[in-house]
Amino acid sequence: MQNNPSLRREIPEASLRRLPIYYRSLQGMVAAGASRVSCADLARVLGLDPTQVRKDVEMTGIVGKPRVGYALDELVRWIENFLGWNRPKDAVLAGAGSLGSALLGYERFRRHGMQIVAAFDTDPEKIGQRIHGREVQPLMFLPDFVRQHKTPVGVIATPAAAAQSVADLMVSGGIRAIWNFAPAHIHLPDGFILQNEDLYHSLASLSFKLEANNALRR
Amino acid sequence: MQNNPSLRREIPEASLRRLPIYYRSLQGMVAAGASRVSCADLARVLGLDPTQVRKDVEMTGIVGKPRVGYALDELVRWIENFLGWNRPKDAVLAGAGSLGSALLGYERFRRHGMQIVAAFDTDPEKIGQRIHGREVQPLMFLPDFVRQHKTPVGVIATPAAAAQSVADLMVSGGIRAIWNFAPAHIHLPDGFILQNEDLYHSLASLSFKLEANNALRR
Repeated sequence: MQNNPSLRREIPEASLRRLPIYYRSLQGMVAAGASRVSCADLARVLGLDPTQVRKDVEMTGIVGKPRVGYALDELVRWIENFLGWNRPKDAVLAGAGSLGSALLGYERFRRHGMQIVAAFDTDPEKIGQRIHGREVQPLMFLPDFVRQHKTPVGVIATPAAAAQSVADLMVSGGIRAIWNFAPAHIHLPDGFILQNEDLYHSLASLSFKLEANNALRR
Repeated sequence: MQNNPSLRREIPEASLRRLPIYYRSLQGMVAAGASRVSCADLARVLGLDPTQVRKDVEMTGIVGKPRVGYALDELVRWIENFLGWNRPKDAVLAGAGSLGSALLGYERFRRHGMQIVAAFDTDPEKIGQRIHGREVQPLMFLPDFVRQHKTPVGVIATPAAAAQSVADLMVSGGIRAIWNFAPAHIHLPDGFILQNEDLYHSLASLSFKLEANNALRR
């Protein structure tokens, strides 16, 4: 399958986020015994615009036949390949509190491109504990672990105050992409990948929409 | 402070998501003893475009003096008011697994517009347990609870297969906005607010960027 980096870089974030929705829907169709699917079918099931769905699906590089659509299993494989889900990357977790523990429990991350292979914390009470099968190690061991295992991804689930120093520690060990759950603004050197998952941002959006909605109803 | 619903509806999602970043940075400045701030200062600290910061800040309705900037505490209050963070909404949680428990532990949600007042699950082992001070109740009690307390927000942290039926249950009780953490596509009637927090979507984006980055380095 082709893998042209210059093409790959221009994919809109929104499309990237829709592909997993298609993927899930397609798996439901596979489970229901279907063998072929068209973009129009998929759009109908999900209540989305068919043209948009076609554009998104074609980004993966798959070539469909007009009117006949795609072989379901083939489309599933193209999406997996496009997103890199069939090549899961190793990740380390920093911060084994309640959120970190929840993330360690997401066994299905593995089928979605990532597996957390080790967890780190500074709390002596947490170090040595096993959470969902992984032993919590002292945070100071993180850079060496990452260097030895060439781990590409770091997940930050620490308090906000620790986030930047943990990110620096990850970068010093060779981490290339950070998934940040701490409510903190992190600076990374150029060329590193940062994905922020700040629940307070989402909450801001939800809270705002609810207020706007209330105002309209009054 | 003005609250014009027609104006409020046209706020871009990206701006809504930047306001909490400004807010956090401003609180840092307050803690450091500062009393005034300009958009240029804020932009510099955060490495953002000053024009963008000014536009975002002005959305809140605050009026600044050219060159003098804003009183720091006043700007903080305008953002809180704009996002509704000074009027926290009650929420119920469905699904008291590891993610749900982590969400119950986020005490700071309260300062960000939402407080989870009750938790529900179908698992007999979980029902009756107290998690971060809230007792887990049978899911079937949810609609009555929501109706009695006029709870506006529902948080879904159930497995994907249960998400739609839980959403229907929430809507039947009068919930107006749903924050969905389940990896499932939920349909809500028109006029309801849905905020999806699908970690697999984020992971798709992260995984894709990492692959693209690897391809460029080869």
